[in-house]
Amino acid sequence: MPGNSFGQQFRITTFGESHGEAIGVVIDGCPAGLKIDTAFIQTELNRRRPGQSKITTQRNETDEFKIISGVFENITTGTPIAIIIPNLDQKSADYDHLKDVYRPSHADYTYETKYGVRDYRGSGRASARETVARVAAGAVAKLLLQKSGIKINAFVSQVANVELEKSYTELNLDSAENNPVRCPDEETAQKMIVLIEQVKNEGDTVGGTISCVVANCPVGLGEPVFDKLHADLAKAVMSINAVKGFEIGSGFEGAMRKGSEENDRFSSSPSPQGEGLRVRSLSNNSGGIQGGISNGLDIFFRVAFKPVSTLMKDQITIDKSGNEVELKGKGRHDACVLPRAVPIVEAMTALVIADHLLRNKTSKI
Amino acid sequence: MPGNSFGQQFRITTFGESHGEAIGVVIDGCPAGLKIDTAFIQTELNRRRPGQSKITTQRNETDEFKIISGVFENITTGTPIAIIIPNLDQKSADYDHLKDVYRPSHADYTYETKYGVRDYRGSGRASARETVARVAAGAVAKLLLQKSGIKINAFVSQVANVELEKSYTELNLDSAENNPVRCPDEETAQKMIVLIEQVKNEGDTVGGTISCVVANCPVGLGEPVFDKLHADLAKAVMSINAVKGFEIGSGFEGAMRKGSEENDRFSSSPSPQGEGLRVRSLSNNSGGIQGGISNGLDIFFRVAFKPVSTLMKDQITIDKSGNEVELKGKGRHDACVLPRAVPIVEAMTALVIADHLLRNKTSKI
Amino acid sequence: MPGNSFGQQFRITTFGESHGEAIGVVIDGCPAGLKIDTAFIQTELNRRRPGQSKITTQRNETDEFKIISGVFENITTGTPIAIIIPNLDQKSADYDHLKDVYRPSHADYTYETKYGVRDYRGSGRASARETVARVAAGAVAKLLLQKSGIKINAFVSQVANVELEKSYTELNLDSAENNPVRCPDEETAQKMIVLIEQVKNEGDTVGGTISCVVANCPVGLGEPVFDKLHADLAKAVMSINAVKGFEIGSGFEGAMRKGSEENDRFSSSPSPQGEGLRVRSLSNNSGGIQGGISNGLDIFFRVAFKPVSTLMKDQITIDKSGNEVELKGKGRHDACVLPRAVPIVEAMTALVIADHLLRNKTSKI
Amino acid sequence: MPGNSFGQQFRITTFGESHGEAIGVVIDGCPAGLKIDTAFIQTELNRRRPGQSKITTQRNETDEFKIISGVFENITTGTPIAIIIPNLDQKSADYDHLKDVYRPSHADYTYETKYGVRDYRGSGRASARETVARVAAGAVAKLLLQKSGIKINAFVSQVANVELEKSYTELNLDSAENNPVRCPDEETAQKMIVLIEQVKNEGDTVGGTISCVVANCPVGLGEPVFDKLHADLAKAVMSINAVKGFEIGSGFEGAMRKGSEENDRFSSSPSPQGEGLRVRSLSNNSGGIQGGISNGLDIFFRVAFKPVSTLMKDQITIDKSGNEVELKGKGRHDACVLPRAVPIVEAMTALVIADHLLRNKTSKI
Repeated sequence: MPGNSFGQQFRITTFGESHGEAIGVVIDGCPAGLKIDTAFIQTELNRRRPGQSKITTQRNETDEFKIISGVFENITTGTPIAIIIPNLDQKSADYDHLKDVYRPSHADYTYETKYGVRDYRGSGRASARETVARVAAGAVAKLLLQKSGIKINAFVSQVANVELEKSYTELNLDSAENNPVRCPDEETAQKMIVLIEQVKNEGDTVGGTISCVVANCPVGLGEPVFDKLHADLAKAVMSINAVKGFEIGSGFEGAMRKGSEENDRFSSSPSPQGEGLRVRSLSNNSGGIQGGISNGLDIFFRVAFKPVSTLMKDQITIDKSGNEVELKGKGRHDACVLPRAVPIVEAMTALVIADHLLRNKTSKI
Repeated sequence: MPGNSFGQQFRITTFGESHGEAIGVVIDGCPAGLKIDTAFIQTELNRRRPGQSKITTQRNETDEFKIISGVFENITTGTPIAIIIPNLDQKSADYDHLKDVYRPSHADYTYETKYGVRDYRGSGRASARETVARVAAGAVAKLLLQKSGIKINAFVSQVANVELEKSYTELNLDSAENNPVRCPDEETAQKMIVLIEQVKNEGDTVGGTISCVVANCPVGLGEPVFDKLHADLAKAVMSINAVKGFEIGSGFEGAMRKGSEENDRFSSSPSPQGEGLRVRSLSNNSGGIQGGISNGLDIFFRVAFKPVSTLMKDQITIDKSGNEVELKGKGRHDACVLPRAVPIVEAMTALVIADHLLRNKTSKI
Repeated sequence: MPGNSFGQQFRITTFGESHGEAIGVVIDGCPAGLKIDTAFIQTELNRRRPGQSKITTQRNETDEFKIISGVFENITTGTPIAIIIPNLDQKSADYDHLKDVYRPSHADYTYETKYGVRDYRGSGRASARETVARVAAGAVAKLLLQKSGIKINAFVSQVANVELEKSYTELNLDSAENNPVRCPDEETAQKMIVLIEQVKNEGDTVGGTISCVVANCPVGLGEPVFDKLHADLAKAVMSINAVKGFEIGSGFEGAMRKGSEENDRFSSSPSPQGEGLRVRSLSNNSGGIQGGISNGLDIFFRVAFKPVSTLMKDQITIDKSGNEVELKGKGRHDACVLPRAVPIVEAMTALVIADHLLRNKTSKI
Repeated sequence: MPGNSFGQQFRITTFGESHGEAIGVVIDGCPAGLKIDTAFIQTELNRRRPGQSKITTQRNETDEFKIISGVFENITTGTPIAIIIPNLDQKSADYDHLKDVYRPSHADYTYETKYGVRDYRGSGRASARETVARVAAGAVAKLLLQKSGIKINAFVSQVANVELEKSYTELNLDSAENNPVRCPDEETAQKMIVLIEQVKNEGDTVGGTISCVVANCPVGLGEPVFDKLHADLAKAVMSINAVKGFEIGSGFEGAMRKGSEENDRFSSSPSPQGEGLRVRSLSNNSGGIQGGISNGLDIFFRVAFKPVSTLMKDQITIDKSGNEVELKGKGRHDACVLPRAVPIVEAMTALVIADHLLRNKTSKI
């Protein structure tokens, strides 16, 4: 199958190029009867929107969306939900100088070799503008998850060497929205902002990490053996532009430990619902997933983003004919993509959890 | 769809429990006309086999396999290739004491909650024994890739705090097979072995990282936007038991850098084939993939494994009824799973590359 | 997976309701480098368009389409091709009286029971208006097939008891476009038209059969054992509104015969290309497919359409509460859907053949 | 994706060649907690078994099966269920004379052209022996459907010109098992048997039709718009060897009617469960499916089988080199495949209904 669809049961297909007429998504498999809160979808899109703060790109897209199908009198009907987000501020002429150039660490060369042709305007389909469709679909997935009380919070946990040192459990994750860098610790946030502005002034860019927490996920999501919940989460976030790494729970650090340190000890208590047991572990090095299946604790993972490849500095590269050319630093780009990537990570996470929530409906008779 | 299949065009479905009759795999989509080298498949299985050295579990499985279908007179026919590996040394009685117990950081609790029933003998389907099927299928994928000159080498790059410090480009990766820990640097290998033996004597276990290099991969593999090559690689290896992290190219370290440091500068030279250009980059922070598509350089990634959860020490845990119980440290288990996981990482990598090699046949007219 | 996608490698996802804003389709997997002839797509849509002749519904849709993505400078880029066809002449108020009514032999009752909600305006997603998306996508598939010289002709072979008695091999199939009923035999066509007009005057409707021929299909398309070429063709056309039967080659009539009568005897001659053999059979009871794989002869099948369920006569039915109600015969509907269904059958056929053409690229090394 | 899997949620993958070691199937997606009645599975296999009566082939296969995985203490565990049926009576030497021959209306020529190689022993994968795997999997699907009270009965409704004239509603369908031809009307059955024996004595073969009824199917199964229930049924049965036609409900005959004759009038009565309405139609030309979704009435369809291609008469054909050769009539084959195809049609039907039963679990919130 081609690569523009994601999910099995809550399944999305995205389309559209950065400088084409619109970006869009078709959601197939959303259950009927879900109330669609369009204001919520717009809020989510606004969190990803360019131009939202002084530390993001100034491309001016309102990212207003239109639902074309699948919703009748504000309720999903079980038919495909198509959402379109027009591209308004595309300035294709800005890209004429890139027509024959392979930008460093961009997809120009690989797309052209793979397909033989390439829409060079603003990176075409390889542009992060494509992710607006993911956020729209992710917002619908979040509405579905809200019915089960599941909550997803991503936040910026590192920008280059400025790292959030507190554990997420000590923080109010919703407060990440209170600052433009989306770090839930105000002091760290301010350091990150200073760093980003400084890098921006140099015409350079900077990477970092985003952490994500899924709270109140029911036990049992994830399909062994290949569609383990964390394997699907890894694929989901690794498919976001500029992502280079993923770790769940104790991750790479856990690889340094002994089993006796890493193992999560179980305990039990009477269920809050009054019947049966509530099984929990005292630590959560597993990151909420054991054997590929959610265990009811917080799902917790971390994602590495490389610095944006487009610089406001001149760079040396080559063109199609192999000639060396100087690439001028110009255009409208983020010096640090992480603040705007927070809702994208949440969206991809929501899509995975919604998909597995539906897939789990048939696990037993 | 259920979760026991992997791949789109070169597609495998695995089955079998640790202490059932056999483990097996059906490969559907392998092109006809491929010569099957059964000795090679056995060699690959032997690399994963328990009991192969003093630092691995002593469960005694010869892992002899049988090809049931899809191969006629040593040549693939285009029909499904079913491979069966019988379980010979299952000692199910060993597991009776685990029937009602939830072992720490194991899949007992999550499987039982998800499915309502559980084959408790040797972890059932959640056992790493399942990966023998992946290695068998991966061996067939490797035979297919060999026709295109593609070569895959994984190796142990870290055991707890003992880390391989040299770059892979300075090492002969095939030499990893010369020592039981599968590290291509003999000096580091010896330190790792010492550490593993020491941990084993403590009744404890230890984690680490495996690195993997794909050489001679053609340009163009990977399907934007969701089935990016590194997203599929991430899912593939994250689905292996005990894996907790994945990073491609500069990975988490790249997240610390500026764009001007991270970007891979392109250069070109006449193609060795005499026509057209050979486009390469001078550095490979991208890890051989740009925009989700292979660029012809080495694909390079790193995988984190947590320490094995089964200890030879006693641990406190709970049973189904919520009672605290002492779990005795006994059975036959690896103190460090990494040496035997090397062929598994290679197998999953081979499956992804073979799948995308076939998928790429229709990228242009 | 949800049900709004079709095809594996040349894969479409359709969306949109009869009285929503638009109908649309995303084509994922069309190879890059295909020239898109927009005039041809419009011509195909016009063949399906309502109001095209006196014997079709008078709903007035121009069915002008817009390509949103995937085509750059008239060439496909390998990214998803989204096509939108706005709904212009929707008169939703016409449907208020149907809000609570279950029309006989319509999907009202089943949709409402399955989904709990229903877009009652013009049958919503169950309307044959959805097929406009199939025709648009099928036109792109036809452009791809033209590169391989493959030609598809469907035509009306029966309207109630008026049957085309000549074999298709005696007729110029392109001449079906010369009359509004799309029967390639002018004399039979005229009888069909007379019958349709007569039935229309009665406020009634009438069914019939469409036959379809695929010429110049290469040998080797079709994937045993479940995705046999004729099994996929059957599913494709059975998914069109009002289709009730499918037969390939000698079909139901062949079931009456003996093997010695039915078997197609092979013969061979030197290949027209000058090397190898051209293997053909002297008869074609197989309908161009043997063992699920095309054999190079004409693929030939026949499709049964029931009469349209919406009558211009009053009918007795029930409403949601179970009360008997009289359903008034009004609205704008076809008395016979077959002439407009010809391009739909061709479109679904083109989608299957294009899909299998791409799938067959990996049959051997 | 390759073609050896069927179903989305209740998904099977079959493997094995007629004269290889075994035929097998992996069922992935069967819910946990289902009791497996192995005697029932064997009974189903026996209904398909060769040598069961004087009118079937005398190949001697006991068709004893082995469950390799997925069932623990007679209960499904949610993991893949692998079932193996060894081939015992393969006499491959019988097929040496066919190595280079293309038998008329067989898959020899198409397989060889598609794949470049071919397992010529007993038709390899193209043999109807493959269907034993479908029957085994279908038996598991039937066990699942029994939990919902769904019952499937197929029967032989026509052998050449001997046709069952009564409506199925007048017959006890279970009585089809009382005679070797599996026709539920004893008088017609005897005529069919006489005809088959006569044709067999001529060394010829004969085709016919099988009808199938699904009783007690809940309302709501089927996924618009492409995975309509009858579209999936059509694909399922068209993928069985020798099937040439499919019709649902009034089928091809309905195409002759007017809408006022064809439409199924709704009526309602209080639900037998005491709340809500029971909506039924007075006639069932729709065959139990409207808009692609089951409506609670009997699902009823008919399938055309061509006569078996292998004759016990000599035939003229060609070999690989294009030379005309005489094909001797020998081997062990059915003169009429229909009696043994009855359980195969039921199995494919059960697989479709089970799949849609599971898929429907997520239709609404």
